[in-house]
Amino acid sequence: MAKGTTAEPLDITPGEGEHCSTGHHLCMPEDSRKRAARRLAIARGHLESIRRSLEDPDVYCVDVLRQIKAVQGALDGAAAVVLRGHLEAHVATAATRGDEKAIVDELMDVFKYV
Amino acid sequence: MAKGTTAEPLDITPGEGEHCSTGHHLCMPEDSRKRAARRLAIARGHLESIRRSLEDPDVYCVDVLRQIKAVQGALDGAAAVVLRGHLEAHVATAATRGDEKAIVDELMDVFKYV
Amino acid sequence: MAKGTTAEPLDITPGEGEHCSTGHHLCMPEDSRKRAARRLAIARGHLESIRRSLEDPDVYCVDVLRQIKAVQGALDGAAAVVLRGHLEAHVATAATRGDEKAIVDELMDVFKYV
Amino acid sequence: MAKGTTAEPLDITPGEGEHCSTGHHLCMPEDSRKRAARRLAIARGHLESIRRSLEDPDVYCVDVLRQIKAVQGALDGAAAVVLRGHLEAHVATAATRGDEKAIVDELMDVFKYV
Repeated sequence: MAKGTTAEPLDITPGEGEHCSTGHHLCMPEDSRKRAARRLAIARGHLESIRRSLEDPDVYCVDVLRQIKAVQGALDGAAAVVLRGHLEAHVATAATRGDEKAIVDELMDVFKYV
Repeated sequence: MAKGTTAEPLDITPGEGEHCSTGHHLCMPEDSRKRAARRLAIARGHLESIRRSLEDPDVYCVDVLRQIKAVQGALDGAAAVVLRGHLEAHVATAATRGDEKAIVDELMDVFKYV
Repeated sequence: MAKGTTAEPLDITPGEGEHCSTGHHLCMPEDSRKRAARRLAIARGHLESIRRSLEDPDVYCVDVLRQIKAVQGALDGAAAVVLRGHLEAHVATAATRGDEKAIVDELMDVFKYV
Repeated sequence: MAKGTTAEPLDITPGEGEHCSTGHHLCMPEDSRKRAARRLAIARGHLESIRRSLEDPDVYCVDVLRQIKAVQGALDGAAAVVLRGHLEAHVATAATRGDEKAIVDELMDVFKYV
């Protein structure tokens, strides 16, 4: 994870509400972090079962497409958990830190890749 | 993979060009199958590295969002490999088998979940 | 509509089943064409009402976002009508014309922009 | 625009920075509003030209699909303008008003339809 590349405008000492082990940048709320991790673990298991199904010469294209879409739905769910945590913990509090512009620019940049 | 659920309109004996070990339904071209499997293996590894990164309390939301988007791009690539194989091997030949309607209905149904 | 740019691999005299006024390229099934046109007319009306709503200084961002998403859903519906017609009339018959590769390449190229 | 349906958690008297003609809810920044309106006007013109192209029996499916994708890209651009304005003017300031939860719930609800 290339944390360094985007960390600069966010090297702000968080308030007490931010459960961060370091004082150097905004950290993910613990609840989002754990829930996203669980969802990613499930998606990874599903992805592995699709990969294994491709060892069978009889596998059917459309079944594989459907399964890939299901994993993408699961990843959308994981991303939604992370996004909600970010909006609540970091974006909604930006005006109190004074980094509104930087934090919104950064988020809009991510949406470009959606 | 619930192959059974959608196999009915596709229980057609394939021509010799279809590298299928059974004669019961259309099979995925071997090349697509292997290339898609390789891409899914890479995506699974990336997903696992994101999941692990979430064990670090210092991980940053926006980095996680970016990484999830990257995996979704990889899954789009894997799905494109499967879709291309399906279009070439099964959809483009539908009129020669006479199952145009069934094969197009099935594919449009998958796109709904895109 | 820059028809010329992509017409080359498709300059094929269509069979009698293709309701085409010229013999130079594959044409859209009339039913798809009319249904897509109706859907686009509705989407355009909706888009115009959103644009007008933006003249009101009291309009709320989230309402505008919701309305834009609704128009995008309507355009997805119009695109699905066109895609289904294309798959049935042109892709499913490709092996009978011998242009499988060209027609699939062209379609995969469009999906890239989805 | 069904403003009423979602206005409740947002019936907050805006601060002086919000260029709102009423005191009843959060309003769109004027710059976003004008830029989004211009983009929607262009998209509507493009949509009308696609609809008109469908009157021609010779129009080709894949050209129509490409044009519809182009309009969807333009709508994504208009939505990005509105979203950025909303994030800067309303989400980034939520903690100063105390409606973080309501404003994030509302925004996440919109993303579901993306």
